[in-house]
Amino acid sequence: MRSVVKISGKIITPERVNLIAGYVEVLSRLAREGLLAAIVVGGGRLARSYIDAARRLGLGKSLQDLLGIDSSRLNAKLLALAMSGLVYPEPVKSVDEAVRIYYSTGKPVVAGGFQPGQSTAAVAMLLAEALGAGRLVLATTVDAVYDKDPSRYRDAKRIQRLSYTKLREVLEQSLEPGHYELLDEQAISIGMRSGIETLVVYGYEPKRVEDAVRRGIAGSVITV
Amino acid sequence: MRSVVKISGKIITPERVNLIAGYVEVLSRLAREGLLAAIVVGGGRLARSYIDAARRLGLGKSLQDLLGIDSSRLNAKLLALAMSGLVYPEPVKSVDEAVRIYYSTGKPVVAGGFQPGQSTAAVAMLLAEALGAGRLVLATTVDAVYDKDPSRYRDAKRIQRLSYTKLREVLEQSLEPGHYELLDEQAISIGMRSGIETLVVYGYEPKRVEDAVRRGIAGSVITV
Amino acid sequence: MRSVVKISGKIITPERVNLIAGYVEVLSRLAREGLLAAIVVGGGRLARSYIDAARRLGLGKSLQDLLGIDSSRLNAKLLALAMSGLVYPEPVKSVDEAVRIYYSTGKPVVAGGFQPGQSTAAVAMLLAEALGAGRLVLATTVDAVYDKDPSRYRDAKRIQRLSYTKLREVLEQSLEPGHYELLDEQAISIGMRSGIETLVVYGYEPKRVEDAVRRGIAGSVITV
Amino acid sequence: MRSVVKISGKIITPERVNLIAGYVEVLSRLAREGLLAAIVVGGGRLARSYIDAARRLGLGKSLQDLLGIDSSRLNAKLLALAMSGLVYPEPVKSVDEAVRIYYSTGKPVVAGGFQPGQSTAAVAMLLAEALGAGRLVLATTVDAVYDKDPSRYRDAKRIQRLSYTKLREVLEQSLEPGHYELLDEQAISIGMRSGIETLVVYGYEPKRVEDAVRRGIAGSVITV
Amino acid sequence: MRSVVKISGKIITPERVNLIAGYVEVLSRLAREGLLAAIVVGGGRLARSYIDAARRLGLGKSLQDLLGIDSSRLNAKLLALAMSGLVYPEPVKSVDEAVRIYYSTGKPVVAGGFQPGQSTAAVAMLLAEALGAGRLVLATTVDAVYDKDPSRYRDAKRIQRLSYTKLREVLEQSLEPGHYELLDEQAISIGMRSGIETLVVYGYEPKRVEDAVRRGIAGSVITV
Amino acid sequence: MRSVVKISGKIITPERVNLIAGYVEVLSRLAREGLLAAIVVGGGRLARSYIDAARRLGLGKSLQDLLGIDSSRLNAKLLALAMSGLVYPEPVKSVDEAVRIYYSTGKPVVAGGFQPGQSTAAVAMLLAEALGAGRLVLATTVDAVYDKDPSRYRDAKRIQRLSYTKLREVLEQSLEPGHYELLDEQAISIGMRSGIETLVVYGYEPKRVEDAVRRGIAGSVITV
Repeated sequence: MRSVVKISGKIITPERVNLIAGYVEVLSRLAREGLLAAIVVGGGRLARSYIDAARRLGLGKSLQDLLGIDSSRLNAKLLALAMSGLVYPEPVKSVDEAVRIYYSTGKPVVAGGFQPGQSTAAVAMLLAEALGAGRLVLATTVDAVYDKDPSRYRDAKRIQRLSYTKLREVLEQSLEPGHYELLDEQAISIGMRSGIETLVVYGYEPKRVEDAVRRGIAGSVITV
Repeated sequence: MRSVVKISGKIITPERVNLIAGYVEVLSRLAREGLLAAIVVGGGRLARSYIDAARRLGLGKSLQDLLGIDSSRLNAKLLALAMSGLVYPEPVKSVDEAVRIYYSTGKPVVAGGFQPGQSTAAVAMLLAEALGAGRLVLATTVDAVYDKDPSRYRDAKRIQRLSYTKLREVLEQSLEPGHYELLDEQAISIGMRSGIETLVVYGYEPKRVEDAVRRGIAGSVITV
Repeated sequence: MRSVVKISGKIITPERVNLIAGYVEVLSRLAREGLLAAIVVGGGRLARSYIDAARRLGLGKSLQDLLGIDSSRLNAKLLALAMSGLVYPEPVKSVDEAVRIYYSTGKPVVAGGFQPGQSTAAVAMLLAEALGAGRLVLATTVDAVYDKDPSRYRDAKRIQRLSYTKLREVLEQSLEPGHYELLDEQAISIGMRSGIETLVVYGYEPKRVEDAVRRGIAGSVITV
Repeated sequence: MRSVVKISGKIITPERVNLIAGYVEVLSRLAREGLLAAIVVGGGRLARSYIDAARRLGLGKSLQDLLGIDSSRLNAKLLALAMSGLVYPEPVKSVDEAVRIYYSTGKPVVAGGFQPGQSTAAVAMLLAEALGAGRLVLATTVDAVYDKDPSRYRDAKRIQRLSYTKLREVLEQSLEPGHYELLDEQAISIGMRSGIETLVVYGYEPKRVEDAVRRGIAGSVITV
Repeated sequence: MRSVVKISGKIITPERVNLIAGYVEVLSRLAREGLLAAIVVGGGRLARSYIDAARRLGLGKSLQDLLGIDSSRLNAKLLALAMSGLVYPEPVKSVDEAVRIYYSTGKPVVAGGFQPGQSTAAVAMLLAEALGAGRLVLATTVDAVYDKDPSRYRDAKRIQRLSYTKLREVLEQSLEPGHYELLDEQAISIGMRSGIETLVVYGYEPKRVEDAVRRGIAGSVITV
Repeated sequence: MRSVVKISGKIITPERVNLIAGYVEVLSRLAREGLLAAIVVGGGRLARSYIDAARRLGLGKSLQDLLGIDSSRLNAKLLALAMSGLVYPEPVKSVDEAVRIYYSTGKPVVAGGFQPGQSTAAVAMLLAEALGAGRLVLATTVDAVYDKDPSRYRDAKRIQRLSYTKLREVLEQSLEPGHYELLDEQAISIGMRSGIETLVVYGYEPKRVEDAVRRGIAGSVITV
C-alpha cells in the first residue's frame, strides 16, 4: 500500500538541516521502493512570519494565506531538490496537477499548501485520495492522539486506535492549537469518504515515518 | 460594494437558454458598472451524470469530483462566452489564478469548481475573500433559509436575517440535500473569518440577483 | 505498427457506462502492449447541446465550436481517467502538446477536439501523422463505407478496400450527415500526404477495435 | 468593422526591413483606432528552408510543419515587438488563446501558423471568426483574384467582386502554387459559414492594407 | 522617464513591516503616475538561510541558487500583494514574461531573481532594458558609491557622478562583499550597452527612492 | 560522467543538413547510453539576421536579443525533433524548466538562448551546473584555444590544457569576435564555482564531440 507523508512545517525548516537530511534518507528509500505517492510539507515558522507581516500591512486573510502557501512551497522545494530524481522536483499546486504528473511520470509529488483557508493536512488527504494512497502518515510535533492535552494533564491517555468520528469528539473537547495540526474537518471528511487510514507519528524521528509507511506502526491509527 | 454571484448548476444549464439569457443581461449590466468580482456556476445535472458514470467505472471519489469540476467549468464557460468582453473568458481554476487575472485586467472572473471534496459555494466564498468582495449572492433553487424544510412542513418559517452560527444550527437540524447547496462548513468558516455577508435569492428569476447586488435585497441575509 | 483510435462521441458518453468499460478493457490491453499512440473522442450529444445553447444565446460559430470542443474533452477525460496510468490523464489541446507529451513520457495521449471548424476525425488524423502512427481506426456508428446510404437503399454495397480518392467520390455523392462523421476533407488530405491507412469499424463493439489495431481487420480499409 | 490582416511571409521577412517599417506604421495607426482584431504572418522563405531541412533529415510532414509554424511565429514576433504596446507581444498559438487574450486585454493579437496541414490564411480566417471581425484583408504577392494566371496569360482578367463559390471554381481551374496562398478550402468554409468578407490587396504596398481596412477598397472582394 | 526600482532583500523582509509599508506608500504613488516599469526585490536573509541549508544538504550551487530565487520571489510577492491592483500581483520569472505582461496590461511588474549565478541587480537592469526604462534606482544598505569602503576608511569619499567604467575600477579595488550588491559585471554591461543610468540611494528611507525616480536625486549617479 | 554539448549556431543551420544528420547520429548514440544531460544550440546566421532587422526597426538591445533567442530555439527544435524520443522535444526556456523536465523524465533537454545579454555558452554552462554534468563540450568553428588568433598569426600555439584563469588572460589579450564564442565571463564564473571542465572541439566533425564526451579527448581542455 502506498502512503502520503505529511511533515509538519516545524520540522522541515532550514534551521534543522540534520533532521531534513534524516528525512531525505528515509523518504528516498521509500520512494525507490514505490511506497510513496506524495510528500506534503507545512509552512511552519516561515509561513507564520509572512502571514503576520501581510496582516500588519493590511492584507486580507486570503492574501495572507497565499503568502503562507508560498512559504510552505519553499520548504517543500528544499526537500524535493534534496531528493532530486526520486520525486518530481517542483511542488505541485493543485490536485489536477498532481494527477497529471503522478500518473504520467510515476514519481511521487511534493506539495505545500493549495488554497487559502485550508490546512496542509487537508492537502495531504486530498492527494492520498486522488493518487489512490490508502494511508496518510502525519509526522507531527506530538507522537499520538491523546484524550486530553498531554502537556497539561498528567493523566492524559494515548489512544492507539480510533475512528474519525471519535477523533472529532476528542478534537471538539480540546481547543489547543497544537491539536488542530493533526486533522481538520476537511481532512477528516475526505478520509472518511474514501477510507484512508491516518497514522500519527512523532516527526522529530524520521525513522518513525519509515515504520509507519512500511509496517503500519504508529502512535495512533485513525480509521473509518 | 462588489459582489460574487454564485448560481446553481440547476439553473445555468444548456436546457435553460432563456434563463441564461436573462442572467447574461443582468450580469452584463452589473459587470459594466463594476459591481461584480466573480461569477461561480455549479455543475448541476451534467456534473452528476459524469460523476455517476465515473463511479460506475470504478473511479475513486477524487477523480469523480475532477469530472464534476470540469462539468461545472463547461457551464461557467458557456456563461462567460455569452458575456464576452465583460468577464475574463476562461473559467479560473484556482484562487491564485483569480487573483492574478482580477488584479491585472480588472475584469470579473468566472469559475466552476476548484477542488475535489469542495462545493462551488465554498469556491464562491473563497473568491469573495480573495478579491475583496464583501457580499456573496447565492442564486439557488430555494428562495431563502427556512427553519424547517418548507417542502415538507407547512409551518416552515423564512428567516430573513441570521448569523452564520445560527445557519449552522439550522443546517444541522435538517438533513435534506437541498439545503446542503446553500453553504457548507468550508464556506461558512471563510465567510465568518472575513466578514462576508451572504444573500440567498430565488435563482430562477435573474432580476432578484440584481436586487441583491445593487440594494442588498434578498430572501435571507446571513452575516457574522 | 501503432494506431490512433477515434471513437464517436455517440459511443463514449456517460449514458453508456458498459460500453465505456468495454473500451477501457480493450484499450488498456492495447496500451500496455505499446500499440496505441492516441485515442480521440468525439463530442456527441453533449457537444450538440452546448453548441445549440450557444447558438441560441447569439454566439458565433467559432465560440459555439469552442464549447463543443470542451464537451468532447470531458468525454475524453472520462475515458482517460478510467485508463489512468496507461495514458496521459489530461486531454491534449494541440499537436504541439501531443508531441511534447508522447515523445517525453512514451504514453498514448487522449484528445477531444482541437480547433473550431475541425472534426475530431481530423484531430485523430493529425495525431496519427505527428506521432508516427500508420493506422487510424475509426470506431463509428456505421460499420463500414457503403456506396449508398445503407439505411435507405437495400442494395447498398459495403466497400471493403478503397482509396482516399474513391472515398471522396462516395462522400460527394451522399449528403447524409451520418457519413460526414467518417472523414472530412482535412482528414483525407492529411491521410493522403502521409500514407496513413484508415480502418472503419462498428464502434458499439469494442472488440472490433482490437481486431483492427492488432490484425488490420475492419469493415472498410481506406488507403492512399 | 474590425479586420484581421494576413500578410504573406514573403513580405514580412528580415530582408525587407523597409517594408516591415511601412507595415508597422500603417498597422499601428489602425490598431490605435481599434480597427484591428488580429495580424497573421506567413512563414515565407524561412519556413521553407526549415521544412526542407526537416524533410531531408527524414522527419514526417507533421514535424516539418511544426518547424514551419515556429518560423512563421518568428516573423510574427518581429512585427509584434516592433508594434509593441499596440498588440499583444507574443504570437498566439491557438484560437482559445486568442480569445482569452483579445477579450481580456482588448489588444489585437498576432499569429503565425497554428497546426500542421493548415495554411496561415486559414489561421487568419479562424481568428476573424473567433474575434468577431467581419473582414479579412489578405496582403499577398498578387494584387487580386484573376480568372487565369496573369503571369502566363496576357488576357487574364481581374475579378473585382466574387463569391466564395466562384473563388472555388477559379482555384480549381488553376493549379499554380501562387494561387494556393490566397485561400484554401478550410479558410473558404470558415469564411462562408460566418459571412466574413475577404479583401485581396497587393502586399508590397502597406498603404493598400490601410485602404482595405478603412474603406473596403481592394483588388478583389470575396463575399458569401 | 520611467524607472526600475531595485530594493535590497535586507530591506524588504517580513521583520521590517514599517519599512515595507513606507515603500508601499511611495511606490503606489509612483505607479499611479506611470513612473515605474518594474520593482525588483532581493532575497536577503531568507535567501541566505535556504541557500545555506541547501549547501549543507549537499545540493550544488545551481539548486542552492534556485532556492534563493524562490526566497526573493516570496519577498517580491509580499510587496506586490500589498500594492495590489497597482502592479501585476505575481512575480515574473523571466524577461519574456515581463515583456508579455508589461506591454499587454501596462502595469509595472515585480520580480525577485531569475537565474542561478545572477544577482537581482542584474535582473533589475535586464528589466530596465527590456521595458524601456532609462533609469535604475538601487535602494541599498549604503547610500552611495565611495572610493574606498566607508566603514573602514575614515577618509572615504562619496562619488556623486561616475561612469560605469569608473565604477568597475572602484569595485575592482575593493573586495568587500557589501559593494558587490551594487552592480556586478552582468548588470554593468547591460547598463552600458543600453545607456541606462543607475542611481544609488539609501534604501532604509523610502522617500529617497521617490526623489530619485521623480527628480534624479541620489547619493551617486552612474552613467555611460 | 554526463556532458552538456554546446554546438555553434554556424553549424546547426538548415543549410547544413548533412552536418546536422551527423550530429543526430552521434548525439543519439550518446543519449541512448545516458551520457548527455543537455544539448545547446546557438543562433548563428539566422539570429543575426533577425537581430539586425530588429535593430534597423528601432528596437532596443533587449528585444533584439529576444528575437535572437527565438532564432536559436528554432535551430534547437530542428535538432530535437530529428532526435525525437531521445531528447525532450521542445527547447527549454529556463534553468527551472530544465530541472523540472530532466529530473522527471530523465531525458536530456535541448536549449537555445535563455535571456537577453547572455551567450548560449553561458546557457550551456548553467545547464551543466543545474543538471549535475561535470563536462561541457564546446563544438565550435575553431578547434581549440590558441595563445593568439591562429588565422592571423602563423606562430599561434594551441593550448592543450589551461585553467579558467588562464583562459581569461588569453581572451583579454585577443579582441577577435571569433574567440568570444568560446566562453564569456558569465560562463567562466559558473564553470569555476562548480568545477565543470570545458572541452573545445572542432564542430564541423561531429565525431570529435563523441570523442570528447566519451573519452575526454579535445583540442583544448579548460579546468578550474
